[in-house]
Amino acid sequence: MNIVILAAGMGKRMHSALPKVLHPLAGRPLLSHVLDTARTLDPTRLVVVIGHGADAVRAAVAAPDVQFAVQEQQLGTGHALAQALPLIDPNVPTLVLYGDVPLTRASTLRRLTDAAGRNGYGILTVTLDDPTGYGRIVRDAAGKVVRIVEQKDASAAEREIAEINTGIVVTPTAPLAGWLAALKNDNAQGEFYLTDVVEQAKAAGHPIVTAQPDDEAETLGVNSKQQLAELERVYQRNVADSLLVAGVTLADPARIDVRGTLTCGRDVFIDVNCVFEGDVTLADNVTIGPNCVIRNAAIGAGTRIDAYTHIEDASVGAQAVLGPYARLRPGAKLADEVHVGNFVEVKNANIGHGSKANHLSYVGDADIGAGVNIGAGTITCNYDGANKHRTVIEDNVFVGSDTQLVAPVRVGRGVTIAAGTTVWKDVADDMLVLNEKSQVSKAGYARPVKKKK
Amino acid sequence: MNIVILAAGMGKRMHSALPKVLHPLAGRPLLSHVLDTARTLDPTRLVVVIGHGADAVRAAVAAPDVQFAVQEQQLGTGHALAQALPLIDPNVPTLVLYGDVPLTRASTLRRLTDAAGRNGYGILTVTLDDPTGYGRIVRDAAGKVVRIVEQKDASAAEREIAEINTGIVVTPTAPLAGWLAALKNDNAQGEFYLTDVVEQAKAAGHPIVTAQPDDEAETLGVNSKQQLAELERVYQRNVADSLLVAGVTLADPARIDVRGTLTCGRDVFIDVNCVFEGDVTLADNVTIGPNCVIRNAAIGAGTRIDAYTHIEDASVGAQAVLGPYARLRPGAKLADEVHVGNFVEVKNANIGHGSKANHLSYVGDADIGAGVNIGAGTITCNYDGANKHRTVIEDNVFVGSDTQLVAPVRVGRGVTIAAGTTVWKDVADDMLVLNEKSQVSKAGYARPVKKKK
Amino acid sequence: MNIVILAAGMGKRMHSALPKVLHPLAGRPLLSHVLDTARTLDPTRLVVVIGHGADAVRAAVAAPDVQFAVQEQQLGTGHALAQALPLIDPNVPTLVLYGDVPLTRASTLRRLTDAAGRNGYGILTVTLDDPTGYGRIVRDAAGKVVRIVEQKDASAAEREIAEINTGIVVTPTAPLAGWLAALKNDNAQGEFYLTDVVEQAKAAGHPIVTAQPDDEAETLGVNSKQQLAELERVYQRNVADSLLVAGVTLADPARIDVRGTLTCGRDVFIDVNCVFEGDVTLADNVTIGPNCVIRNAAIGAGTRIDAYTHIEDASVGAQAVLGPYARLRPGAKLADEVHVGNFVEVKNANIGHGSKANHLSYVGDADIGAGVNIGAGTITCNYDGANKHRTVIEDNVFVGSDTQLVAPVRVGRGVTIAAGTTVWKDVADDMLVLNEKSQVSKAGYARPVKKKK
Repeated sequence: MNIVILAAGMGKRMHSALPKVLHPLAGRPLLSHVLDTARTLDPTRLVVVIGHGADAVRAAVAAPDVQFAVQEQQLGTGHALAQALPLIDPNVPTLVLYGDVPLTRASTLRRLTDAAGRNGYGILTVTLDDPTGYGRIVRDAAGKVVRIVEQKDASAAEREIAEINTGIVVTPTAPLAGWLAALKNDNAQGEFYLTDVVEQAKAAGHPIVTAQPDDEAETLGVNSKQQLAELERVYQRNVADSLLVAGVTLADPARIDVRGTLTCGRDVFIDVNCVFEGDVTLADNVTIGPNCVIRNAAIGAGTRIDAYTHIEDASVGAQAVLGPYARLRPGAKLADEVHVGNFVEVKNANIGHGSKANHLSYVGDADIGAGVNIGAGTITCNYDGANKHRTVIEDNVFVGSDTQLVAPVRVGRGVTIAAGTTVWKDVADDMLVLNEKSQVSKAGYARPVKKKK
Repeated sequence: MNIVILAAGMGKRMHSALPKVLHPLAGRPLLSHVLDTARTLDPTRLVVVIGHGADAVRAAVAAPDVQFAVQEQQLGTGHALAQALPLIDPNVPTLVLYGDVPLTRASTLRRLTDAAGRNGYGILTVTLDDPTGYGRIVRDAAGKVVRIVEQKDASAAEREIAEINTGIVVTPTAPLAGWLAALKNDNAQGEFYLTDVVEQAKAAGHPIVTAQPDDEAETLGVNSKQQLAELERVYQRNVADSLLVAGVTLADPARIDVRGTLTCGRDVFIDVNCVFEGDVTLADNVTIGPNCVIRNAAIGAGTRIDAYTHIEDASVGAQAVLGPYARLRPGAKLADEVHVGNFVEVKNANIGHGSKANHLSYVGDADIGAGVNIGAGTITCNYDGANKHRTVIEDNVFVGSDTQLVAPVRVGRGVTIAAGTTVWKDVADDMLVLNEKSQVSKAGYARPVKKKK
Repeated sequence: MNIVILAAGMGKRMHSALPKVLHPLAGRPLLSHVLDTARTLDPTRLVVVIGHGADAVRAAVAAPDVQFAVQEQQLGTGHALAQALPLIDPNVPTLVLYGDVPLTRASTLRRLTDAAGRNGYGILTVTLDDPTGYGRIVRDAAGKVVRIVEQKDASAAEREIAEINTGIVVTPTAPLAGWLAALKNDNAQGEFYLTDVVEQAKAAGHPIVTAQPDDEAETLGVNSKQQLAELERVYQRNVADSLLVAGVTLADPARIDVRGTLTCGRDVFIDVNCVFEGDVTLADNVTIGPNCVIRNAAIGAGTRIDAYTHIEDASVGAQAVLGPYARLRPGAKLADEVHVGNFVEVKNANIGHGSKANHLSYVGDADIGAGVNIGAGTITCNYDGANKHRTVIEDNVFVGSDTQLVAPVRVGRGVTIAAGTTVWKDVADDMLVLNEKSQVSKAGYARPVKKKK
């Protein structure tokens, strides 16, 4: 089977500089969703017809298995499909999809192509409560499709028909060039409509068959930000339902956003208003508090992530405790039983088994051993204004509060750093390190007085 | 046209010390919404009838174009309107609105007043699925309004009428004094109802006309916190729809709150659960992460605001990056390409082009030049216990981590401040500044042992 | 009255290691909700029939007033109830509830038991739009219950019956042993169904009566995470409605979660997306900003809590100001007019009247007097690696920014601590305390140059 995806439209009502098919749904372009679905059908040829914003669209979805046909002028769906003809195999059927109809399921398309077989002309139809505006599927007494009639041409009786044409079709390919060449553009828009091919297919003796999707939302297209928002909600609700079926506990299925892949173990709990992006894996018994943002991360079994935790490109071991207000940036690798608490940022750093950084700290470009206690207000001074340097803190170090570690620096095993110490030279194992200080009390100090403004 | 807004009611079911019409919808009193709509109709006189909590209501909405009439006792809508008579122009019609019906659109009211003309008596009606409890609009065979019949007085046939009286009317003014004086209070509540005027108007030969709103919610009043919450959601959904139509991308139209005016450029993206208050402007290509709170702020083109960022009375240039967990307080003015990162608070401070404060810092009462790097844990010590003082950091300064700048203090161009430095004296250009310290390691330190409790 | 709660089922579709009846709804096990409701009916005996995960269930809900009967094999509801017989009083009726049907109201159950009296057999029924799959209530011409017919056994006419059996029944107890013993398991599941008792009760001359709940959700059971999520939303919407009726202003009733008891004074405002857990009390005029998490806390009148504030096991006085991004941990006790600002953590600490800690501080194991100003970046170094120690700061102390207080330490009344000071010795009243420092500027410093990678 060939698959041709029509993706040349402008999307004027999107009010955007971005081509319509590149607007993101669940974090990825509309067109990418259609391509993903197409690929699950193993097409022999996969062609995207581009036009408006062609370069941007090509750049966004370029891949070895994708060919592009350019429709210089947008003269209608029939004309768009014609541009793809040189790139497809005439000996197998061609499935026509749309770059702005992102939620069609592969199972639905397979039902359609199975129904059509090698010789049939298959139309995906759907039955609507209110079919106004759509092309109706006119059937004869035997239930066979006679034709598709557009709203403006429909009789009163035909307007009562609730089954409509979605535009998604599968067609024999060999005769397609002739059928498309025969289309006329004598309509209000002056366009060549793919819809009109059905009559030629019927006349040529191809069986006209139909299939319907499981869910009406599979046939919805995006022409405005309102429709985009609606489909985003449909998509997210579907994801939430899949998670629930798999046994994940969601505090509110209407308040979770997954933009990528969320893989969950057993007995995972996700509280309200969390956002997951990219590839996120939550192992058994992970609990995620409210309002977390987690992007490209693997979280180990039994780990508890509290409210307002923000994780990006990081990994966390088992039985760890994060947050509230913890921030893991790219390259943070936390071992089992690590605690990273409130107002603590970790970047490009390894933190060993059972170590803790619970308050107001910045741990960047660092290797922290096991059993280390990072006091409140600790800062790894990793940046000298030009280059980044590493801080190494070995096992069982006690870092006193408000310590600065001026990298590159190494602190040996078992060291104790006094509170408020600037450490810029390496420290040998087991030492107590400090800056010498005097604590001086002076009597007679007069506090400033509030000035009049 | 005169406009009289009835706003004297107590709102017992609100269970509040605040007069009902002052309860906020989208951050502003119900009555203010009605006043705003009234003003778009350019009334010659604008009168608010106050009673319960009169002083508070007067204080909340006092303006040069508003007159107040006091209804000492709440004896019904007819009685309330009578209090306004001395303040209005008898030669033009009078439109009667309600301080607790906040969502009526100006276009609807204009339709009503246009229908009534100078001599008609116009009633805003609405057709409800369930009209139970409301006064029904009884029409004759020709469709002309005969009368309004209250639920309790309605025949079985009349109770089937779905068109109901909203209470909003426009009336000729000259005869109004006579009509109101003729009202009787022989009803269960012992009140004088404006509703009853219609029969006198009809008897006097004034055409009785009606108009309907576009949306039923335009006629809903607030008598309880439940109704207030419902109208808040209607209001917010309307705002979200307007943003979508204008081309803004909203991750979830049901999870955005705008309490004021949100003005967006092209290709703006707003993630879930954001709250906007006051006047907020987002230029082209701004992206707002989840859970942000933004109040009275202007954000420049291409700026990215990450999760949990809280902005109040601040301005941000173009191509800046804020958050997650950034806090801009009043008087924060960030130039283009500034980065303010996590757990950083900026108050009453200018930050110059391309400068960065990315971690755990407090920048208050400061002037920061261009190209400055503020290290993690930097604090401007702006308060001496009585007065606030300014910190000046000139261009290209490198502020090492955990620096305290004891204001007033000036740090010259190109200065480098070592990590962990307290700076209390001005620093000349290009200097390296530090506090002299020793780093001492002591062997033989014995860690404390955990005491039994 | 006896109450028997059937709670032995596995809940395979929950995909969980946790027994079904222990899955939390609003933060507490499903079974605990049923027990709470049961207790309001003052049963003479309260028996829980356990089976799957018996030990865990027993441990979770053990209480002096609860007896447990173990159903070793899950052979149906009739068999389950039979296990409870030895524990109940034969002289009073027995009400049968289900551990996975959490939202039945006591008023509904009372209506049912009142209808049944001492001799009747009462069935809680509900009328559904779509009764497919449920046992229908068949009545005679006089409206009397004839029998319950299961879906598979129902005639076409019976399938049209919309009134269904919820499974909740009240039955005379003395004859119950005989009835249960007479049940047959000749059905597809091979189980003994309690449903089948009704025919024996009728045959024995007991009046068969019914009652209906106010709300269909009262009869819904939990068999999957989807159903759990649905009931969670029903529960939360009910809580939100109760708060609104009581006069609380909610920005969005669909975005508040209460997992415990939230008690509010007059004129409380709660913004979007807040989560309340345990026992929380908000006094008059408290305002809660968006995205707060508050657990086991009492908040005084007029206190304002800004966005992203996280409170656990803490108390706050009147007219205080917290957040945004304030964190109160267990044992935080704030007096009136205290301000705790952004990125400040307070744990096991008393903060006196009017004291302020507004920026980037950690206050743990401390006693702070009245009128104290805690500068930005202040840290109480409460942990020596083994034990926690207390910091005492007396009234009117001014703590300069970036101060470390190495506990145990006491700072006397009126002391001023210079910025950037490490305090490890007690300070007498009214002193100015500091570490002696030099500020040195060095010329000729060459900034590092960015290395090529």
